[in-house]
Amino acid sequence: MDKGFLGTNVITQIGIIVRDIDKVSQSYADFFGIEKPKWFWTDTVDVARTEFKGASSEARAKLAFLDCGQLQVELIEPDEHPSTWREFLDEQGEGVHHIAFVIKGMKEKIAVLEANQMPLIQRGEYTGGRYAYMDTFKELKVMVELLENDN
Amino acid sequence: MDKGFLGTNVITQIGIIVRDIDKVSQSYADFFGIEKPKWFWTDTVDVARTEFKGASSEARAKLAFLDCGQLQVELIEPDEHPSTWREFLDEQGEGVHHIAFVIKGMKEKIAVLEANQMPLIQRGEYTGGRYAYMDTFKELKVMVELLENDN
Repeated sequence: MDKGFLGTNVITQIGIIVRDIDKVSQSYADFFGIEKPKWFWTDTVDVARTEFKGASSEARAKLAFLDCGQLQVELIEPDEHPSTWREFLDEQGEGVHHIAFVIKGMKEKIAVLEANQMPLIQRGEYTGGRYAYMDTFKELKVMVELLENDN
Repeated sequence: MDKGFLGTNVITQIGIIVRDIDKVSQSYADFFGIEKPKWFWTDTVDVARTEFKGASSEARAKLAFLDCGQLQVELIEPDEHPSTWREFLDEQGEGVHHIAFVIKGMKEKIAVLEANQMPLIQRGEYTGGRYAYMDTFKELKVMVELLENDN
């Protein structure tokens, strides 16, 4: 598929904000009959270069992933620093925060969405790639995350 | 996979509650560069045999589906009658309501989840199958829908 704003319609991830990643990871492991996934911290700001609403942020989160067929469930426990994760937890509580798509050409895709009234909220780097959260809630009733991997 | 409570870990659907299915369908169509999906009403209670919190309900909803790879996005616009859809819209507003799994043996799967403190919230029939919403929010931070198809 080469149409649409992203050039893909394949959802690769559902991101869920949680207060206690250890507890919720165990619940998912029990539910699926699998071993509890290990959580890890996102990189520090010097590596992640996290920007939230245009400003650098020290925000980090604990992440854990569960394979659910084509897509993964990503559990996210935010720290106290400003981020879309923290904001979601403070304003709405636990629950589904985003759906993610793997795209090519991060800069261009962000520009296309911004030109269509879906502004960038947060972005950062991870080993082997980068992410951007776009404010698509008004249109799609869920936030969209773009993921670009180098390989 | 034959472990866990459901015998599957494949998410087949993300259900999103909306106020205006016509408008949100158009937004998704624009986003993906596809034709706007047609919405339709769920069946009336005589066919759907809808039960919400143990009582028969006349609740119906407008539904529209978008293919997103392995899974579908299901847009749901509830009517005014009592349902998990209406309750979600009234209490939390628009947003992601559930993730769904296709299972076999609805009665047994409901019993397993209920025995694990995840009670049945709503169930009903559709042409060719049946569904059940289970209250998994406390454990998984999202509601789970079970779908059983006859073929």
